Amino acid sequence: MQISMYRASVPVFTRALRNLAGILRKGEAFATARKIEPAVLLNYRLAPDMFALTRQVQIATDVAKGCVSRLAGVDAPVFADDETTFMQLLGRIDRCVDYLETFRPEQVDGTELKSVTLKMRSGELHFEGLPYLLEFATPNVYFHCATVYAILRHCGVQIGKTDFLGPA
Amino acid sequence: MQISMYRASVPVFTRALRNLAGILRKGEAFATARKIEPAVLLNYRLAPDMFALTRQVQIATDVAKGCVSRLAGVDAPVFADDETTFMQLLGRIDRCVDYLETFRPEQVDGTELKSVTLKMRSGELHFEGLPYLLEFATPNVYFHCATVYAILRHCGVQIGKTDFLGPA
Repeated sequence: MQISMYRASVPVFTRALRNLAGILRKGEAFATARKIEPAVLLNYRLAPDMFALTRQVQIATDVAKGCVSRLAGVDAPVFADDETTFMQLLGRIDRCVDYLETFRPEQVDGTELKSVTLKMRSGELHFEGLPYLLEFATPNVYFHCATVYAILRHCGVQIGKTDFLGPA
Repeated sequence: MQISMYRASVPVFTRALRNLAGILRKGEAFATARKIEPAVLLNYRLAPDMFALTRQVQIATDVAKGCVSRLAGVDAPVFADDETTFMQLLGRIDRCVDYLETFRPEQVDGTELKSVTLKMRSGELHFEGLPYLLEFATPNVYFHCATVYAILRHCGVQIGKTDFLGPA
């Protein structure tokens, strides 16, 4: 298989999100085993002005579905940011993965030069499809997944890099 | 420009590493301003059995140069893991970026099916070039860069996601 915009997005994001779900399941099991209120982990953050774990998961899924949707030229479904349990976060990840898997390669391939505009609080960001995928969306997804990992690792959950990367 | 194995590796890794260097420079400035011994930050870790900041930088650079070298079929230079200062870590990143920039697209493009073997402590890992790049090396580089970010953020360094992603 040749590398393509589809191959570098949908399978990459679904894999990252499935690995994130595995990390969350280990976090949930840790909370149960240690009799820690799950909300303590879900609201944990590494610095007072950093997003808590729940928000990290929300953003990781939003970036992934937003990226593929923009490349394909369709509107991404909006997920209510109302998760308060591990199960609800896992459900959000499932819904995101299911959505990503509805895309066919021909919807995403060939979008290297496609004009992509993001509305941010600070103004608009303009990209071409290729740098948007490789240099904005992909590191963004990994950033939030790695932050979830770091939060749970810091809290004592026994996870390793293989949980983040997935099986070889 | 079409997506290619080269475009998804060399420019992506050099960008990630340059952003990592920027994060480290902010860490160094923070140590100076706050009169914190730099080694405290360099040896900081988020959990007792997790690698410290210095090792995270070493691994990020090793994964990046190892990946492009394996795809191109050349031996990567070995860097002595002897950095004890921010300046030395920044020098290591510079050497890695300089090395990555010696590759020409034709050395890396078309390596989607190339057989790649990694010798790990736990045994050998076998990949084809495409999943090796997209699902092992790339998340691995981002994982270690994000961990450096998380360590410094946790220590109070004023950095934001834009430092990790770089300018749009």
